[in-house]
Amino acid sequence: MTIQVLAFDVFGTVVDWHSGVAREVDALNLAVSAAEFALQWRAGYQPAMARVRSGELGWTKIDDLHRLILDELLQRYGITHLSETQISRLNSAWHRLDPWPDVLPAFERLKKRHVVCSLSNGNLSLLTHMGKWGGLPWDCILSAEVFHAYKPDPRAYLGVAEVFSVAPSEVLLVAAHQDDCDGARQAGLQTAYVERPREFGQGQVKPCPRHASNTFHSTDLLDLADQLGC
Amino acid sequence: MTIQVLAFDVFGTVVDWHSGVAREVDALNLAVSAAEFALQWRAGYQPAMARVRSGELGWTKIDDLHRLILDELLQRYGITHLSETQISRLNSAWHRLDPWPDVLPAFERLKKRHVVCSLSNGNLSLLTHMGKWGGLPWDCILSAEVFHAYKPDPRAYLGVAEVFSVAPSEVLLVAAHQDDCDGARQAGLQTAYVERPREFGQGQVKPCPRHASNTFHSTDLLDLADQLGC
Repeated sequence: MTIQVLAFDVFGTVVDWHSGVAREVDALNLAVSAAEFALQWRAGYQPAMARVRSGELGWTKIDDLHRLILDELLQRYGITHLSETQISRLNSAWHRLDPWPDVLPAFERLKKRHVVCSLSNGNLSLLTHMGKWGGLPWDCILSAEVFHAYKPDPRAYLGVAEVFSVAPSEVLLVAAHQDDCDGARQAGLQTAYVERPREFGQGQVKPCPRHASNTFHSTDLLDLADQLGC
Repeated sequence: MTIQVLAFDVFGTVVDWHSGVAREVDALNLAVSAAEFALQWRAGYQPAMARVRSGELGWTKIDDLHRLILDELLQRYGITHLSETQISRLNSAWHRLDPWPDVLPAFERLKKRHVVCSLSNGNLSLLTHMGKWGGLPWDCILSAEVFHAYKPDPRAYLGVAEVFSVAPSEVLLVAAHQDDCDGARQAGLQTAYVERPREFGQGQVKPCPRHASNTFHSTDLLDLADQLGC
């Protein structure tokens, strides 16, 4: 069991999307709860990707799916006074999300023995801008966009192994979401679940149960680095 | 004329492939000139990609094209004593090429105002390993592999603009090869030619004439950073 490549889910696993999005909503002084707006925006994410998976939409970048959801949300909340520039800027809030505090020191350790790459449904430019924003030292940015397949489509997971010319079992998918781990395991990858109990904000605690099917269960990425001997 | 993205050719432009490959050939103590062997290996590169472009070969990674050329070269030179491990290791010499001395300080300056990405015919894993080897702080690694089109196919150049949702003219292709600049210009990109007179080793000086068709002509990447005001 040699792990060559660590492929990270990003939203929630590497970066704190809830507080980052809520911060930018809050700055616009809308007559809505910024925390609730962020949750509603994220709630549109899986249904939007499902429209691509089903073929209803052709291949569509997450930036564009985020915009579809945002336009619906603004309409639902009756927010009509924002300019196109403001809406476009708000849509790119997902490019300006901060990493959880353990990420940068953990990445420095993990990079010494492994390839550290993203495997996010976020598009390449979103991930690139986010990397610059947060100083994420990715060895390589991979995205569903490269494989034209949104996780948990097995083509996304297997694509990482193909890119690095390794067996699927030599790739460790790291995610704070059990469905992502399940998809990766079914494609033959190893999996590490990471606890992110505050993914949905300070108002609630996300349960992070231990599943025997995961190769690793970690409280954060420093804990994972310990377990990997990095 | 706003340049958002700097897309770099890699072999010869960012890294010194000749001395890097020759170093690893030399270490094997073969009865050949390491400098000549490196030149012959590189000489097989365009013909190998032409077999992919023509459809004779399906999509094939540069790692695999390098191996095809290497196997032919070893046969031509009558070198039969290397083990599979040695040949495989030699083939990955292209993953361990050093950047030219100006690259790291220039990248730090260029990254502050632009997205700095690769656009190489080299495959993603090759570029990832090379980045780790040389400490290249890419914002994003793009490759012909992402677009399944080898430069100078316009799909490779236009793919960069599509990834970053910018106009082709907002992408600057940086290369030490005029044919690469020509391909990029024909696709609507801006171009920067970089002089690398020692690309083919110390034994010869590559002519680096100034072409009026390029947006910039630079003696090295620090000179380009000066010209871009970075």
